[in-house]
Amino acid sequence: MEYRVEDHVVLPTVDYRAGRVTIIDQTLLPAEESLIRLSTLAQVAEAIRTLRVRGAPAIGITAAYGMLLELENLLASLVVDPPGYFFDRNEGMGSFPGGGLETARIRKTLAEARTVLARTRPTAVNLFWALDRMSRTVKGGGRDPVALCGAIASCAFAIHEEELRIEFALSGNGADLLRDGMTVLTHCNAGGLATAGYGTALGVIYRAVEQGKRIAVYADETRPLLQGARLTAWELMKRGIDVTVLCDGAAASLCASGKIDAVIVGADRIAGNGDTANKIGTLTLAVLCGRFGIPFYVAAPWSTFDVSIGTGKEIPIEERDASEVGSFSGSPTVPEGAVIYNPAFDVTPASLITAIITERGVITRPSAAKIAAELSNPGDGPPPQGG
Amino acid sequence: MEYRVEDHVVLPTVDYRAGRVTIIDQTLLPAEESLIRLSTLAQVAEAIRTLRVRGAPAIGITAAYGMLLELENLLASLVVDPPGYFFDRNEGMGSFPGGGLETARIRKTLAEARTVLARTRPTAVNLFWALDRMSRTVKGGGRDPVALCGAIASCAFAIHEEELRIEFALSGNGADLLRDGMTVLTHCNAGGLATAGYGTALGVIYRAVEQGKRIAVYADETRPLLQGARLTAWELMKRGIDVTVLCDGAAASLCASGKIDAVIVGADRIAGNGDTANKIGTLTLAVLCGRFGIPFYVAAPWSTFDVSIGTGKEIPIEERDASEVGSFSGSPTVPEGAVIYNPAFDVTPASLITAIITERGVITRPSAAKIAAELSNPGDGPPPQGG
Repeated sequence: MEYRVEDHVVLPTVDYRAGRVTIIDQTLLPAEESLIRLSTLAQVAEAIRTLRVRGAPAIGITAAYGMLLELENLLASLVVDPPGYFFDRNEGMGSFPGGGLETARIRKTLAEARTVLARTRPTAVNLFWALDRMSRTVKGGGRDPVALCGAIASCAFAIHEEELRIEFALSGNGADLLRDGMTVLTHCNAGGLATAGYGTALGVIYRAVEQGKRIAVYADETRPLLQGARLTAWELMKRGIDVTVLCDGAAASLCASGKIDAVIVGADRIAGNGDTANKIGTLTLAVLCGRFGIPFYVAAPWSTFDVSIGTGKEIPIEERDASEVGSFSGSPTVPEGAVIYNPAFDVTPASLITAIITERGVITRPSAAKIAAELSNPGDGPPPQGG
Repeated sequence: MEYRVEDHVVLPTVDYRAGRVTIIDQTLLPAEESLIRLSTLAQVAEAIRTLRVRGAPAIGITAAYGMLLELENLLASLVVDPPGYFFDRNEGMGSFPGGGLETARIRKTLAEARTVLARTRPTAVNLFWALDRMSRTVKGGGRDPVALCGAIASCAFAIHEEELRIEFALSGNGADLLRDGMTVLTHCNAGGLATAGYGTALGVIYRAVEQGKRIAVYADETRPLLQGARLTAWELMKRGIDVTVLCDGAAASLCASGKIDAVIVGADRIAGNGDTANKIGTLTLAVLCGRFGIPFYVAAPWSTFDVSIGTGKEIPIEERDASEVGSFSGSPTVPEGAVIYNPAFDVTPASLITAIITERGVITRPSAAKIAAELSNPGDGPPPQGG
């Protein structure tokens, strides 16, 4: 199912094909590799909420495509004999044969779509970043309704394409930190399945391997939803990279043993001072790295930074349903009526982060001052919170 | 199913009743509370190996009873018309009606039983401690075969009874460390199900609650076998104690939040310098406690100390089958062919342990010197490695 972009292998994690949002249904992996087509906004929202598509960058792209899908369905509703579809990532926008299209209607419909999508998951800032960027295009796209539709589609496709380019750039920057023969520990899944198709934390490893370095990977299984066991192991095995799965609790003695040369994880939101929200259990690894002298790297695009908030204390942490912890495949794993605490993310303080790897470069020992300085120097990539 | 000893509620985790080893089958908890009768040495060994009975003190008692069961079956094989049974914990030893009983045969049979039981699990020192104590009785029990049988039975029942008394004493010592209103985090199960029926780490909490203190407990679910979710939550709920289950990875942010006043865990083996082997993931909590200024307590009877080894580096760590991590209720959780690392225990260095709680007292900031000093002062309890 994967495809090539230059010398990189990319997964079709999320795409917009023939008028439909298509995703790999990650809840079925690794048993089943299934591409599903989402044809309504409600289906897109459900797919984000139930983690059929997950990972901060992938959620952002999916949300942008969710708005485009709502526009697709609006256009189809206005045409007596609609063509098969109006939008496609390869083909762009088709011609709109009917009348009755008004910019006010488009803007109202997409504002409502934005509200629905913004309610799906609270922690990943990329979701809001993508929705904001789409909304600015909707608001600023001029008076011609057909041109407005074209601008909205271009914005969604650009978010996807730029994200992929960002992952390649970020991975190249991070790969310089890895030497031949290293063993890396990661948590959750920050690979092609979490992103536009290549990866952030895993992208760094993929790039190092593309450079001919031999890298061995340990993957925390990542309770409760086992993204490490199910998804990270699947991606790495597909690429022929040496991977070993372990329970999250086994990371401590592994780190103490001296076998781990670096830990690399992704991020769901990074505060202005570098404090980083990522999958629950990430803070464990950061504390272990501090104790055992292992570099702890966060790999994330600039769109993950939320400089509107000063520190990690202000990041809202999603608490998910108790059933994720209390049962497995329908079998209960706790006594009936047990109370369960199930936060989806934790916050690692900047002081425990060796470096944040971005598409603009590597920010070592991140701090509010270094992040602000990078912000005032926009470089080549899109700026955070508004590109 | 539980019973009372003085003012303590005790679980029938392992017992010797009417010629059979009886255990609560812990692999069926919490869905099913089932007492099963083991009638052959092979069944006892299987029950230990597959964790139907687990926890270092409970394994020790079960192993002693496994040797007694082999003696029971030897006696039955020598008698044409055997009574229902020869041994029972309440009734002691019944009369032996037949002849043909020779001390050499008893000694040979039980030496072979010892070998079988010693192969079940490598890490818990209590297993070897109980087998050694039984073996010394077998070797030293004199020339009269019936008297020898009585001495062997008395030894097995004494191991059980003393263990229970040790748990009460240990729990009383530990309860003094807990104040009304405290919140305690624990890992795996070091309660009645891991012991003679009361508990070590959880016994400390039970004793504090018996003293009228309000204690809230967070229980790590403890992957891969979920002893915290299944067993610790079950025990605490049975006693009406406030318990919340969380994924092992959620402990870091919980500790960082300031909500945890103490961590208490059990132990499978403690080296001469205080380094402690316990369930995989324990080291994580010890490192988190060090980072966030939380007291980290180990609660374990003296029989858990193995002063024959100097440091934790010498403790053999059992690596268990990959299927424990790679599947759940028969459904795979990793891609087919994935490599899995599944150590059952890790070693926490003494430097991270605030105190070890024993039946003799509390050893704060444990060290080789303090442990050696306590050893040379045998006190009231049975000395380690030889009582």
